[in-house]
Order: sequence, then structure tokens, then C-alpha cells
Amino acid sequence: MSLDYDTYLSPFTWRYGSPTMRRLWSEVHKRRLWRQLWVSLAEVQAEYGLVQPEQAADLRLHMEEVDVPRTLAVEAEIQHDLMAELKVFAAQAPLGGGILHLGATSMDIEDNADALRIRQALDLVLTGLRGLLLDFARQVETWAETPLIAFTHLQPAEPSTLGYRLAGYAQDLLMDWESLSTVRLGLRGKGFKGAVGSSAAYAELLGVEKLAGFEERLSEELELPFFTVTTQVYPRKQDYAVVSALAGLGGSLYKFAFDLRLLQSPPVGEWAEPFGKKQVGSSAMPFKRNPISAEKVNSLARLLAGLPRLAWDNAAHSLLERTLDDSANRRLTLFVEPI
Amino acid sequence: MSLDYDTYLSPFTWRYGSPTMRRLWSEVHKRRLWRQLWVSLAEVQAEYGLVQPEQAADLRLHMEEVDVPRTLAVEAEIQHDLMAELKVFAAQAPLGGGILHLGATSMDIEDNADALRIRQALDLVLTGLRGLLLDFARQVETWAETPLIAFTHLQPAEPSTLGYRLAGYAQDLLMDWESLSTVRLGLRGKGFKGAVGSSAAYAELLGVEKLAGFEERLSEELELPFFTVTTQVYPRKQDYAVVSALAGLGGSLYKFAFDLRLLQSPPVGEWAEPFGKKQVGSSAMPFKRNPISAEKVNSLARLLAGLPRLAWDNAAHSLLERTLDDSANRRLTLFVEPI
Amino acid sequence: MSLDYDTYLSPFTWRYGSPTMRRLWSEVHKRRLWRQLWVSLAEVQAEYGLVQPEQAADLRLHMEEVDVPRTLAVEAEIQHDLMAELKVFAAQAPLGGGILHLGATSMDIEDNADALRIRQALDLVLTGLRGLLLDFARQVETWAETPLIAFTHLQPAEPSTLGYRLAGYAQDLLMDWESLSTVRLGLRGKGFKGAVGSSAAYAELLGVEKLAGFEERLSEELELPFFTVTTQVYPRKQDYAVVSALAGLGGSLYKFAFDLRLLQSPPVGEWAEPFGKKQVGSSAMPFKRNPISAEKVNSLARLLAGLPRLAWDNAAHSLLERTLDDSANRRLTLFVEPI
Amino acid sequence: MSLDYDTYLSPFTWRYGSPTMRRLWSEVHKRRLWRQLWVSLAEVQAEYGLVQPEQAADLRLHMEEVDVPRTLAVEAEIQHDLMAELKVFAAQAPLGGGILHLGATSMDIEDNADALRIRQALDLVLTGLRGLLLDFARQVETWAETPLIAFTHLQPAEPSTLGYRLAGYAQDLLMDWESLSTVRLGLRGKGFKGAVGSSAAYAELLGVEKLAGFEERLSEELELPFFTVTTQVYPRKQDYAVVSALAGLGGSLYKFAFDLRLLQSPPVGEWAEPFGKKQVGSSAMPFKRNPISAEKVNSLARLLAGLPRLAWDNAAHSLLERTLDDSANRRLTLFVEPI
Repeated sequence: MSLDYDTYLSPFTWRYGSPTMRRLWSEVHKRRLWRQLWVSLAEVQAEYGLVQPEQAADLRLHMEEVDVPRTLAVEAEIQHDLMAELKVFAAQAPLGGGILHLGATSMDIEDNADALRIRQALDLVLTGLRGLLLDFARQVETWAETPLIAFTHLQPAEPSTLGYRLAGYAQDLLMDWESLSTVRLGLRGKGFKGAVGSSAAYAELLGVEKLAGFEERLSEELELPFFTVTTQVYPRKQDYAVVSALAGLGGSLYKFAFDLRLLQSPPVGEWAEPFGKKQVGSSAMPFKRNPISAEKVNSLARLLAGLPRLAWDNAAHSLLERTLDDSANRRLTLFVEPI
Repeated sequence: MSLDYDTYLSPFTWRYGSPTMRRLWSEVHKRRLWRQLWVSLAEVQAEYGLVQPEQAADLRLHMEEVDVPRTLAVEAEIQHDLMAELKVFAAQAPLGGGILHLGATSMDIEDNADALRIRQALDLVLTGLRGLLLDFARQVETWAETPLIAFTHLQPAEPSTLGYRLAGYAQDLLMDWESLSTVRLGLRGKGFKGAVGSSAAYAELLGVEKLAGFEERLSEELELPFFTVTTQVYPRKQDYAVVSALAGLGGSLYKFAFDLRLLQSPPVGEWAEPFGKKQVGSSAMPFKRNPISAEKVNSLARLLAGLPRLAWDNAAHSLLERTLDDSANRRLTLFVEPI
Repeated sequence: MSLDYDTYLSPFTWRYGSPTMRRLWSEVHKRRLWRQLWVSLAEVQAEYGLVQPEQAADLRLHMEEVDVPRTLAVEAEIQHDLMAELKVFAAQAPLGGGILHLGATSMDIEDNADALRIRQALDLVLTGLRGLLLDFARQVETWAETPLIAFTHLQPAEPSTLGYRLAGYAQDLLMDWESLSTVRLGLRGKGFKGAVGSSAAYAELLGVEKLAGFEERLSEELELPFFTVTTQVYPRKQDYAVVSALAGLGGSLYKFAFDLRLLQSPPVGEWAEPFGKKQVGSSAMPFKRNPISAEKVNSLARLLAGLPRLAWDNAAHSLLERTLDDSANRRLTLFVEPI
Repeated sequence: MSLDYDTYLSPFTWRYGSPTMRRLWSEVHKRRLWRQLWVSLAEVQAEYGLVQPEQAADLRLHMEEVDVPRTLAVEAEIQHDLMAELKVFAAQAPLGGGILHLGATSMDIEDNADALRIRQALDLVLTGLRGLLLDFARQVETWAETPLIAFTHLQPAEPSTLGYRLAGYAQDLLMDWESLSTVRLGLRGKGFKGAVGSSAAYAELLGVEKLAGFEERLSEELELPFFTVTTQVYPRKQDYAVVSALAGLGGSLYKFAFDLRLLQSPPVGEWAEPFGKKQVGSSAMPFKRNPISAEKVNSLARLLAGLPRLAWDNAAHSLLERTLDDSANRRLTLFVEPI
């Protein structure tokens, strides 16, 4: 990986976030998902006799040939990112190129791709969270009987145990696990409903009576349930639900990290986060043990806490059969990884 | 009802909100719930032989004698609202007064009362929402075939039907119904776990081995599940979940109301909200038909949209076994009624 | 004052906020300001020969007869609060009633009244803040040389002095003083520009060439500068500036209160807030010294922190020459008093 | 510039934002500012006889040799970004390397660099805004007499002129200009006050009596005023002021763009944004003229609107003499460019 340090780079590009999560939110992966959707569309259309099987096969053959720089050059001219990808894909697939995107509107591709990508991201988060919960379970066991003085209002109050305190954090995280799992299971794509959700172009190609079966086949193929009713896009309420659940997780981690920072303060001095051997504490006071991971968690969680409001705004202002005023900020914020 | 117009009165006191919802969030109702919790506690303690049945009965006898002005006079002196209520209740119940609050900490009373009250409020909202969904269902039927031009980017795009457009709003509200129902069913109280959640005082009274059964009896009595682990209070994450779901509903109503306002604009002129016969449109332009209900919905929903962040903050900053920095703003914002 | 405890009452009505601030935000005071604006309008119109001096005088005579219950009865019928007040005022003033509101639109009255009221509220806040700054100045002096260990990352770091630490809070508050003073000095009313800001109705009455002088006279009379350009209302950006500055003050107080809570924690034990003799600490642990005032400040400041976003939304969504979707939430949130 | 499309890239890296602004927020530029601060510190220390002039000169000689990959390799080991830069710089400057950072704490370097960088960014924004205001001024002139029907509540209300409507947006932007200019002029750096703001290490090197003069020389050298009192960092309130003013500008642009979108809707059809010849409107409906620039402005402004809250949180939670929980989110959000 070579990065250009002479331009702005998001810290998520190189400082925070796991490589897996970053790859998921790369241009390449997004375009791979777009192409997968075009291919699935063509394959199901082939089942319905709308395109030739060889055309669909040709598309599948060239599916992996994502070429971002070439596509951006096209986009610079036509100012439409998905259409640029389509043109490049079409040029790569001599047989199938002509039937790409048949009956579709951009959002039949982009929006389903987003749903798939969000689901993949939630799966990563849930996997991480499962591990964290198991760690907590072990620690709760280990320290079940270790006494401590519980604090209310930051005042020593009554005895409790370390295991019990840890169980509180674990219970919070379990609530997050439940709400994230509910959201993940309920995730739906837009399906293939065209420019205003009425499926008009597909109806013209297939006849109205075949519409439902056609969409069902695509849903099977993509292993993605679809919304019954949509506008040009799936209801942005869904993003709000996703981000609210993620921010809830951020809140649990925030509380844990903040408590850790209080407990690592030497006058209390009960906990401390690990400290690397070569790690430098402070340029002026190298003896200090600063809880920098906990501070980082607090800092990122605080950022995350503001995102549900943005998703709310996008949902609330998607005027009539949709506007695009969610697009730019979704590009900036769908990439969220709290662990 | 007489109001003092010479002081500040929240518009929720007299302008917005239903009388039922207002009563639910009155001082009187809150104190009635506190007393109900004290009485249930005494009754279950009587079952365990900790207090005399007559004492519990005496408390039940005087349970309804809430006297806010008298209590506030006591509070002015001791600066603790629940203890003030307790003193007044104790003075009213000569037999039972002495055993009130046995083993309890304030939050064993307040926090369970809040959970009960939030549940009652959610039930009101869900009842309203059920009615609204049925209305939508009827309208979707009625206008299923009525054609219209759908708008994307506020540009006329392709034909759709009015019923289909309405079905979109209904689907949004159904998602809210589901998330509010989930939240409502999952609502838990703190239970009776004392100052730091360790149940120490109750354990001393009952013996550790009877603790679980004792709390279970109270949970049955109050028909309220309890959290397994708590600090002095139930995890404030729960408030975040409640308020996020309510704000989600606010977002759906916002979108509907905003669309209505666009459609009521004469250049489009498709919809209009009802207008009373004697209603005055504008002091300068009485001919105008302003969508004032829709504007009101937008305005209140916008306020509601900011509240999840506050609940998040309260949850994230409930340091160690709790701090009180959620108290003042919860007093101000738990009263939420979006319909 | 008699309050109805059987309905919802905002804690600002009786628990938080000073009596002076509450009176400022009462229905009575608002209506008094409306009437003052009507009277000033009539008096300046009398100067221009548009109404009889006796008519203006009659209005001034009945200006103080605000009768909220009677007005609300009228509003219930016509659903327009300012027009209801106008009808009641007109009925009270037999001579002047007929020329009330001449050439005006509702917002010529309401919006200027809001500007006046916000200014009065800012003056209250600034007076309180001045006192607080003087207190800090004295404390900085007193403790200038008292040594303490400064904490970074909640770790003891290097020596400093108490006076220096206090000077940091004072400098924060001084920044707030400056930004609040700037905002207060810059406050402008809408002036008298009619339904869409074009002053059409006044131009018809006076002739275009007299418009500027007429508005200037009103500005003098009310001691309130006006915006040069408005829509039906003054730009809601102004509210954003006010609330942002107030939230800034809330942030400074929050930091101070949070630090105090940390320092009052017995393991550190450096500071403590005053504790009343009869004050009750905790129902279960009466020995504890909880920093309840600091917690209250944190709680309310956290609420305040969310309000700039609401003001931003109102400003950003005041479509074309205005919509009313700011109204309901401004009724709920213009009342802000952080001290 | 070569970008790695296989990882996450912020849209600000390649889609939104100007090249100049991106360079300002690059790793290279940040490190250049750090080095400039180290050099200025050494030069002023040379004036005070603390270091040799040749040492300072050697540092200036190697100031431009920023080498990000090499530095990141060091950081990977010691987990401290500024200390890594220092090590690399020191290795490059054989004579001066040893006296680098004399008496300083990391934040004496980083925090002043941030203040400088924020100021440069504000200057870019102000330059852009000045151009925009001049454009508006011209348009207001041009269309001063062009009649239109003003809309209130999205209802046609009364006549106005296009020039007057445009003057309203211009007045909004002028208010932003004023508040951004005030913020820009008031920007202060931390100065050189060491780990807790007490200037202890410098006092040891120079003697207390020379401290003020020493800092003044640095302030002159850097053309940057300093705060009188700081903790380890400058008060984070300053960030809140900066971001609030920027969000205010975002709000004005949002209103303008939203109005444009309403006016570009064919039923009104008054305005339209430019549309490129080869631009593609919609994959399904190529005839449409979507206001994509206005939608983009709305989308980004909506994101910006949430950032003051984050800055508030950072300011309010900078516990005692500072914590680091602002760091990660400031890295993510200080890069803001609304035009």
C-alpha cells in the first residue's frame, strides 16, 4: 500500500480501523458489489428469456475487472459514478456489455450494494463483539469474588465485587449485541423497483404478473430480503436503525473506557491498561502511564454518537420519491467501525 | 385546571401534548407510582416476615394521599425530593410509616417508577400509532389506483399511484411500530438492589439465599421484569433505546409532514390538510391555506431528533456505579409525546 | 403562585431557573411586549398622520390589560395566537382598537417581541456572568500561590497553583462573556416589513419614499436595531448565534463542574461544594457528600449543548420567505437560562 | 498522486474539497508546521543563549526534510507521533538534533501548529467567501427589479423581487463573514507553557523573570498570539467557536441550496443550476435536470451541522489539565471545508 501524504488522508485510511473493514469500504469492493448486482440481474433476466445466457456469462467472466482510475476518468466527463462504472464494464464485456443494466435505474444497483456492504460490515462488528463478550465472560468469572468499593457520585459508597462491576459492562454489550443482531437480521435491500419504486420498466419487459417472481429470484440469488415498498431508494430509516445501534455500542464502550480512565488515575489506582515496553508516555513526563487506548475509544465513540442524527436527517428529508441530499454525507459516514 | 400565566409554562403544559400524557408526567402521578412501589415492597416484605401485615396494610390505606405542596415544603429544607415524599407518607401512615423504605435506596423506588411510567407512555404512543396505521391502511386501499407523477430530486419523474406513495409512509410507521414494540417489551426496571446494585441491605435482612426469590416476587407484583445487573440505577442505555425508537417515529412523521407541505404548495397542489371554518390563515393574507399542522409536526419532530444524543450522553457518562448528572435533563425530557 | 400538579409541569416552571427569568418567558410578559409593539406602531403612525393621536393614546391606556384566559378562549376558535390577542386588545380599547395592527403582519409584532425578549434574557445572563467572573477574579487572587499537583490524563503530572487552575476557568468564562456580549450587541429585530419583507403594505400607506424614515423612527422608539433585509421573519441565523454562545457558556460551566466532581472524589479530595446542614445526602448512605449542584450543572449544560443544532435546523429550513416549522420548537427552547 | 483504491479513502481525499485545502491538512504539511515550531523555538532559545546559533541554523537547514514513511516506522514502535517526528528530525540534523524540543512538551508543538493550520484554513474559507459575496452583490444589482412572487409556508404570498430575495442570502453570508472573521482574528495558540501550562521547564532554563519576554518573542516570530492561561493545551472552547462559525456558514449555504432545489422543481421552475453538456441526468430518465450541486451542498452542510456538538464535547470533557480524548476525533474532523 502506498499512500500520498501530500494530500488529506482520513485517519480511518491509515490510523484507525482494521484492514478488513477498510477493504470493505474501498472503491474496489463497492464496484465489485455493483458488478455482482449487474451480473445477478442479467442471470435472472436470462432465466426469464430477456437476455441470452451467453451475455450473462460474458458479464460474469469480466466481473472482477474493476479498474478505478479508468472509471474515474469517465466519471470526470459525465459526472455520474455508477454510469461511468457501467460504461467501463460494458466496454470490457463485448458480448454482455450491451444488455447491462437492462430495465434498471442506478439505485437498483447502488442501493442493494449498500445494503450488502452494510451487512458485511455489521457481520465484522458482530464477530468482534462476540469475542469481546466472551472475554468479558471470562473476566467476570475470574474476578467474581474480588471485593472493591463501589462509587456513586464518585464517592466511595458500599462494597461490591470486581466481577459484578464487569458484569455490568458485559450486560450493556449484550444489549448492543441484541440490537445489532436484530438490525442485521432485518436488513433489506431496495430490490429492483426502478426509478420511483413502481417497477414500471421491469413490468414492461416482463409483464406485471411476473414481477413478484422475478424480484424473488433476485432476492434468493443475492441472499438479501427486499423492502415491499420503496421509492427510488430503500427507506433511509434503515440507516438510522443501523447507526443508532452502532452508536449504542459506542456508548457502552465509552462508559467502560471512561470508567477505566477514572480507575487508572493513581489516587484510585485500581485498573490500568497495558503499556508497551518501548511505548513513550509523554515527551515531558516519560514516567506517566496514560490510558491512551481508553482515551481513543472515548474520542471515537464521541464522534460516532453524532451520526444517528445525520442518518435521521437523511431519512426525514428524503423528499417525495427521493432526493440525493443524503449521498455525499453517506459516502463520508457509512464507513463506521467502532472496534 | 388553573395555570399561572405570569411564570414560564412549558408549551407541553398547555399547548402541545394530550391531557392523558400530561397526567402521566405530572408530579402527582409520579408520586403515586413511588408510593405504589413502597407499598409493594412492604407487602412482599410482609410475606417474608420482615414487617407486620398491618403495617403494609396501613401503607396501602394511605397510598393515595399524595400532597405535593406539603412535600415540596419538606423538600425545600432537606433538598431531596424522594426523601421528602417519604417523610410525608410516613407521617400520614401512623402504623406503617416506620417501616417504609426498609432496606431500600432512593433509586429502588424512583428508577422502577420511571420504568413503569415510560412503559405507560409507550403504551399510549403505541395505541396512537396503531390507530394511525389503520388509517393509513384504509387510505392505501382507497387510493391504490389513483395515478400521480412521482418526483425524484423534486423533478417529475415517472407515474406511480397515490396508494403506493401512502404505502411508503405506512411501511415507515410499521418499522417504528416494530422497534417501539420491541423496546416496550424489553423494558426492565432496576429491581431492588440497593445503593450500588449489590443488594447488600436486603441480603442482610433476608439472607443471601432468599434474595432472588424476593426480587422475583416484587417483579411479579409490579408486572415488571428487572435487569440482572445494575448499578444504583438501571443502565441508562435503556433510555437511549426508548428515545431512539421514539425519534425514529418522529422521523417518519417528519418525512410525511414535509412531503405534505410540498404537495400542498399551490404549484403542485395535490394535497391539503384540513382547514377549520373559523380558522384564520394569516393576519395579512387571510386567503392563504398554510399547512400549520404539518409544520407543527416538523417542528416538534426536529426537537425530538436531538434527544437520543442526550440519552446517549447520560448513558455514556454514568460514571462507575452512577452519577446524578442525568437527573436534571431526564426530568426535562422524559416527557415526550410525538403524536 | 398556584401550580397544577396534576398535569405536566416543566421543571423550569418550578425547579430550575430564576423567578425573573421565568417571568420574562411567561405568557403575560410576551403579550405585554406584543402590545408594546402595537402601541409603538400606532404612535409612530400617528406621527405620520395615518392614525389619530387619540387612537394611539387609547391603545397605550389599555396596554397593560393582558388577559390570558380570555385570549386563549378566542384562540381556541380561530387557532392563531397573535390574532386572538389582537381581538382582545381591540375589544378593550374602544377608540384605538380599530386601527390596531395597521399595515402589519403577525411577524412584525411577534418577531420584534422575540428579539426584545431574547435581549432581556441575555442581559440577565450577562449580569449573572459578570458576578461570576468577579467571584472568580477574587478566588484567583486568593489562591494564586497555593500549590497543587496538576493532572493530565487524570495522572498527577507537575505542580501548578490553585489560582492558576481557577484562572483557566475564568478565562473560559471571559471568552463566553465576549461572545455573548457580541451577540447581544448585534441583536436585531425584523423591523416592520410585512408579509414577505417587502414592506408593501406600509409603502401603500406611506409612500415608498417615507418607508426608511418610518422604520427608523420605530427602531428609535423601541431602541432596537432592525435587519436591513428580512423575509417574513428575521433570519433565524440570529437564533443560532445566540444559542451557540449560550451553549458555549454551558460548556465552560460543564467543564468546571465536572472537574469539581473529580476533585471532590475522596481519593483526590481537594475540593467540595457547600453542603446544607439539614441536607440529606443519600437515603441509604447519609454520610456521603455528593456534588449535587455540580451534577445539576452538568446535566443542564448537556441539554443546552444540543440546542444549537436545533437552531441551525430552523435557520437552514426556513424555506423561501419563511415557513412556520421553527415555531413549535422555538416556543419550547427559547427559554434558556444556564445560571 | 497515486491513490490506493483497495482501501478506504475518505471522499475528502479525492471527491470533495479543493487541492489546496487537502494539502493544508496533509501529513506533510502538519509535520512541516511542527518542524517550523521547533526551529522557531530553537532560534529564540539561541537569542537567550540557551542553544548555539549554529544548532538553530542546522535545524532550519533540515526543516523541509519531512519523511512520512520513515516517521511512521518509528511511530509504530514508540506509539507517539510527535516523538517519532522528533527522532527523525534529530537524526537528520547532526548539529541541532540534540537541542530539539528543549524545555518543550509535545503540545507546545502540536497545539500551536494546529492553531496555525486552522488559521490557514479559515483564510482559505474567507477568501472563498469573499468571492461568493461579490458574486451575490453583482446578482443582487442585476436582478434588483425583477419581480417574483414570494412564498411563505410554500404558498404564493405577495410580490417581491429577485434581487431582494438574493440580498437575503447575501446578508446571511455577510453575518457568517463577520463571525468567521472575528473568530479568525481572535485565534490564539497555546504558546510555550509546558506540560500543565505552568511553564515550569522554561522557567528553569530561563529564570521566571524572562518567561514573558521569551514567549512574546516566539509569538512575534510565529505571528500568532497566545492564550494567557492554558493547561497542557489551549482551551478547546476555541475549536467550538471555529466550528460553530463554520457550521453557521454551512447553514446559510444549506438554506440557499435548499431554496434553489425548490425553485428548480418544474412546477415552480424559476431557477436551475448549470448542467454540463455531457452530464448524465439519471440512468433511467436522462431528460431530467437534477440539482446535484445543491443537493451536495445540502448533504455536506448537514454533516457539518453536527460538528459543533463534537467540539463542545471535547471542550467540556478536557478534564483538569487535559485529557487526550479529543485527539482521535479532532484528527478526523478538523479538516473541514464547506465551499
